[in-house]
Amino acid sequence: MTSAHFVTSKRVEFCETDLAGIVHFANYYRYMELAEHEFFRSLGMSIAQNYPDGTVIGWPRVSSQCSYQTPARYEDVLEIRIRVARLGVKSLTTEYEFYRSTSCIATGRMKTVCCRFAHGVPMTSIEIPQEYIEKIRVAAPDIFVETDVRSEQNSAE
Amino acid sequence: MTSAHFVTSKRVEFCETDLAGIVHFANYYRYMELAEHEFFRSLGMSIAQNYPDGTVIGWPRVSSQCSYQTPARYEDVLEIRIRVARLGVKSLTTEYEFYRSTSCIATGRMKTVCCRFAHGVPMTSIEIPQEYIEKIRVAAPDIFVETDVRSEQNSAE
Amino acid sequence: MTSAHFVTSKRVEFCETDLAGIVHFANYYRYMELAEHEFFRSLGMSIAQNYPDGTVIGWPRVSSQCSYQTPARYEDVLEIRIRVARLGVKSLTTEYEFYRSTSCIATGRMKTVCCRFAHGVPMTSIEIPQEYIEKIRVAAPDIFVETDVRSEQNSAE
Amino acid sequence: MTSAHFVTSKRVEFCETDLAGIVHFANYYRYMELAEHEFFRSLGMSIAQNYPDGTVIGWPRVSSQCSYQTPARYEDVLEIRIRVARLGVKSLTTEYEFYRSTSCIATGRMKTVCCRFAHGVPMTSIEIPQEYIEKIRVAAPDIFVETDVRSEQNSAE
Repeated sequence: MTSAHFVTSKRVEFCETDLAGIVHFANYYRYMELAEHEFFRSLGMSIAQNYPDGTVIGWPRVSSQCSYQTPARYEDVLEIRIRVARLGVKSLTTEYEFYRSTSCIATGRMKTVCCRFAHGVPMTSIEIPQEYIEKIRVAAPDIFVETDVRSEQNSAE
Repeated sequence: MTSAHFVTSKRVEFCETDLAGIVHFANYYRYMELAEHEFFRSLGMSIAQNYPDGTVIGWPRVSSQCSYQTPARYEDVLEIRIRVARLGVKSLTTEYEFYRSTSCIATGRMKTVCCRFAHGVPMTSIEIPQEYIEKIRVAAPDIFVETDVRSEQNSAE
Repeated sequence: MTSAHFVTSKRVEFCETDLAGIVHFANYYRYMELAEHEFFRSLGMSIAQNYPDGTVIGWPRVSSQCSYQTPARYEDVLEIRIRVARLGVKSLTTEYEFYRSTSCIATGRMKTVCCRFAHGVPMTSIEIPQEYIEKIRVAAPDIFVETDVRSEQNSAE
Repeated sequence: MTSAHFVTSKRVEFCETDLAGIVHFANYYRYMELAEHEFFRSLGMSIAQNYPDGTVIGWPRVSSQCSYQTPARYEDVLEIRIRVARLGVKSLTTEYEFYRSTSCIATGRMKTVCCRFAHGVPMTSIEIPQEYIEKIRVAAPDIFVETDVRSEQNSAE
């Protein structure tokens, strides 16, 4: 990771460990989400933004992945570094590094898609609203913003 | 417990244990809920029942408790016995026993209240609809059904 | 609660909510534990204390309970107030209040027992070591400490 | 997936949903693990196998990933299909498909490494014992088994 766009920390809780004495692997995804939501909050955005017309803009997952180098343990304080890897027309891809002290113990990646939720209607993917793009660009000024639907369709995953 | 009104089983999963090598205590509440929902399903009811007018009848918790006698471990198959302890005007109280083989290893209790959820309106407690009462009585014929609001208010918790 | 012995806060995470849009009731037990562990840490103690001889002193649950007045929601910041309710010979009982702003939205209680874990030996309850008692008394000076096994056996649960 | 080596099913529980009304994305990893452990159990193996000398053979994660096509909801019954994708010298890679009725709603993949856990010693990766290989080959006869460390080191991840 060249440089992180946001950094937060998380102390491992007892209930997040398993009988092997280490953090259960599925919890890294909760940690990534926690960091992502704090990142959004730091930009004055919410991952579940209510609008006056009763709709909600949310960000369901398209894919997620994590690689584990070294186990984390109870009471470890992990530093989580986020980088915006790609800002597509409808999707946002973020990358994560988990540090314990100076060691990177895990890395991850999530792709989410911007969706509108309205009561009684299936959720629909939408183009990321301009206000979101502007805020993300403030945090991640080195990000190339794709503005053409065709470019997103052509880009490799 | 004189006799159970419904019995189900649950195998302990790896992710439900903690570093002490035993099931994390908060997971017994998930197990109780799992059993409760299976009990509802066995009666042709859902804990989150959608109605044609868009409202949902649900059962949020008023209180829950659990006592732990012996720890449960990975791959243990627990038998969970439910008993309807009280069917109030608006509330339902259920009791739980967790068995591993012939030993009771934990007991619990939950009180839930029947509520209507409608879009854009705070959830409101309602009298338990007659169809629910009838179905619960089929499973728990020995239950005294309170039909007078005053009796519920006067009854000791 | 006359006065809290320790206060901490917890922001509700997305993954802690359920389809009813509120915090799932079992998560309050994780929150209590989180607060309890921070309380221990604030006293220079750990809920899982390793000793040079390879044994661990831990605190498994005997019982837990929670009452829910008002639901908590995503991004709510809850203040959790702990009070040591009873310091027995082998057990510790703590009480919890959850506040959102100035409203108490839930209360809870947990009883734990001090145990020694050694490799290959079943965990055994032990008298709470004096160093723990002294630290807890610093935080909770108004607590009556029971020092006689007989008194614990006689005390009502 | 050409053909699955093991198939199981899982009903979505209430506590596995989030405020968006769908299964929280991190839970798919618990589902994969659940299926993997049932697969092991079906072969007479355990994911945490105790040996008479006090050591345990376990399978910590190296990496995990999941792609989400369609959300799953409360009470959905998901069919989970596992395929052994690769049986390395020390590692096992499994692939997953989640079906609701006839639709594939998600796919996943996990790589685990065979490790020995002994008391007081850091966990160490080991060559997969022959008895495991034989049992896995019974379930997945079409799998090419790598028996040379060099081949594993050279193989692309």
